Amino acid sequence: MTGTATGSPVVALADRIRAGSQVSLARALTLVESRSDAAAELLAEIWKDSGRAHVVGITGPAGSGKSTLVTAMAQEYVARGARVAILAVDPSSAYSGGAILGDRIRMTELAGRKDVYIRSMASRGATGGLSRAVLDGIVVLDAAGYDVVILETVGVGQAEVDVISVAHTVVVVSVPGLGDDIQAIKAGLIEIADIHVVNKADRPGADLTVKQLRESLRLAHREAQQWNVPIQKTTAATGEGVSDLLDQAAKHRTWMVDHGGLKDVERRNAATRIRWAAESLVAEKLRSGMRDFDAAVEALIAREDEPRQAAARLLTAMAVDPTDINGREK
Amino acid sequence: MTGTATGSPVVALADRIRAGSQVSLARALTLVESRSDAAAELLAEIWKDSGRAHVVGITGPAGSGKSTLVTAMAQEYVARGARVAILAVDPSSAYSGGAILGDRIRMTELAGRKDVYIRSMASRGATGGLSRAVLDGIVVLDAAGYDVVILETVGVGQAEVDVISVAHTVVVVSVPGLGDDIQAIKAGLIEIADIHVVNKADRPGADLTVKQLRESLRLAHREAQQWNVPIQKTTAATGEGVSDLLDQAAKHRTWMVDHGGLKDVERRNAATRIRWAAESLVAEKLRSGMRDFDAAVEALIAREDEPRQAAARLLTAMAVDPTDINGREK
Repeated sequence: MTGTATGSPVVALADRIRAGSQVSLARALTLVESRSDAAAELLAEIWKDSGRAHVVGITGPAGSGKSTLVTAMAQEYVARGARVAILAVDPSSAYSGGAILGDRIRMTELAGRKDVYIRSMASRGATGGLSRAVLDGIVVLDAAGYDVVILETVGVGQAEVDVISVAHTVVVVSVPGLGDDIQAIKAGLIEIADIHVVNKADRPGADLTVKQLRESLRLAHREAQQWNVPIQKTTAATGEGVSDLLDQAAKHRTWMVDHGGLKDVERRNAATRIRWAAESLVAEKLRSGMRDFDAAVEALIAREDEPRQAAARLLTAMAVDPTDINGREK
Repeated sequence: MTGTATGSPVVALADRIRAGSQVSLARALTLVESRSDAAAELLAEIWKDSGRAHVVGITGPAGSGKSTLVTAMAQEYVARGARVAILAVDPSSAYSGGAILGDRIRMTELAGRKDVYIRSMASRGATGGLSRAVLDGIVVLDAAGYDVVILETVGVGQAEVDVISVAHTVVVVSVPGLGDDIQAIKAGLIEIADIHVVNKADRPGADLTVKQLRESLRLAHREAQQWNVPIQKTTAATGEGVSDLLDQAAKHRTWMVDHGGLKDVERRNAATRIRWAAESLVAEKLRSGMRDFDAAVEALIAREDEPRQAAARLLTAMAVDPTDINGREK
């Protein structure tokens, strides 16, 4: 259906990803970060293989033990026979690629396992660019056959909220004794949490944190037929509560499927993708029709035309031909 | 040519702007900040009246006396019989509108004069949005018959560089005794300065600052036939050097006209405008063709289609019809 010639480098790459090559997977993720034409071609090629993974987002303030928790979750998923990919996202860092974030050294215990794949992505300038790379990265990991994609963010700002909102299940991690930080979380993240975790629950004050969260959940406006957000205590360092957390996540996914919520998330993500693809196509068409574009610019500065009419004429003249996308059908 | 019905509110607003109404001008600037359909209609209406003003950008670090300098420049321009508009831009502030920035209280001596108009714009979230509002605001002020538009930015970051680069003549202000800050300016702004000003030139160290600037200009790569960037000393508080600065700005503009540089800036700005207009049109078309868009989203999540093909089909189906822009020709 895509019409890509068999044997093209992108088709070969897609085949190796499907066959489980982690080297090819790393190459593919670097490719989608580049947002090149080849990246668009790869995404078109593997799109139909995606749509199966459970995307679990994890966010929370620094010091809440997210990294240890994600490691423990990955181990538990593997113990249950699932393949897990971890996509760690740092909007405030410019350092990306196969590299591992800050304290990810603990994850060496996961590295090298065939059933676990770890990758970090960082902001290269624009946050919008990161959101796009993340959404595309999830498609790649999903198509590669990972049953669960854990999307982990560092920090709790608006960029993190934007990134995490593409997940099916959003887990917000709190920790006892960061009273003010929990207040800070509440502002931005309380509305998007599907599961609250109070990690380091062996610390004094864990029950107070649970109580505070329960109170803020009680105050939040809730519609009937809405998912009842659980508060799960965990001690990631010992694994305490992690199995229950996985059960809660699975329960949430079932609820989402039953109540149409999963389709809603997928619709939202699909709409975003189409808008991005449309913007890229228009930018490409403007570039490729450079002679027309230059003529429009001259007409504009000669005041023979105004920007909106000029843009409309260019878009019409360059009407995007679907058979011409990605240089396929050639 | 635009086909807007005579007597429409936007046409009436455009007429009042041309007639010199500052109240209508303020309304128009608020309108372009809103980026509404009416804003696009207004810009189309007044586009042909623009293209005459000399746009002078002023930037420099906090404490360099930019505000006093801009006030003195405006007074000198008025004394020479010109009409002057000041557009003060603060990318780091969320406060916009008719309001006057920080220390702009000194400008009360200018306020109320028929030949001077002062307006500030601030970042409402996205920096891209601010750049766009500034570029559109310049068109409005230009069409309103101001001979000079002084575009003043606060701070010296990348956002300021983006904003100031739409000016025909870029003035970078330094001040003696901010040694490190001048080093900071050099990094981002030395390349885009058409005129360097050392303000507060009555302070000790002014000649050292001039020497440092001359040295950094000497080190910068310069092509033949390039504008020879002058370094002008001013004492804005007394008006010393301000008349010379205006002469330098006029000289730069003449040079730009003679050497095609002004056309280059206009071409760059026109290309940006067309790209923005194209993006807006595509976003509108996607919104207005909501039924097709929803169908595309469903096909995407059913894996019957992939994002790029879906976007291409939508764009083709919705091929932008120039007669349909802004609801004109009706």
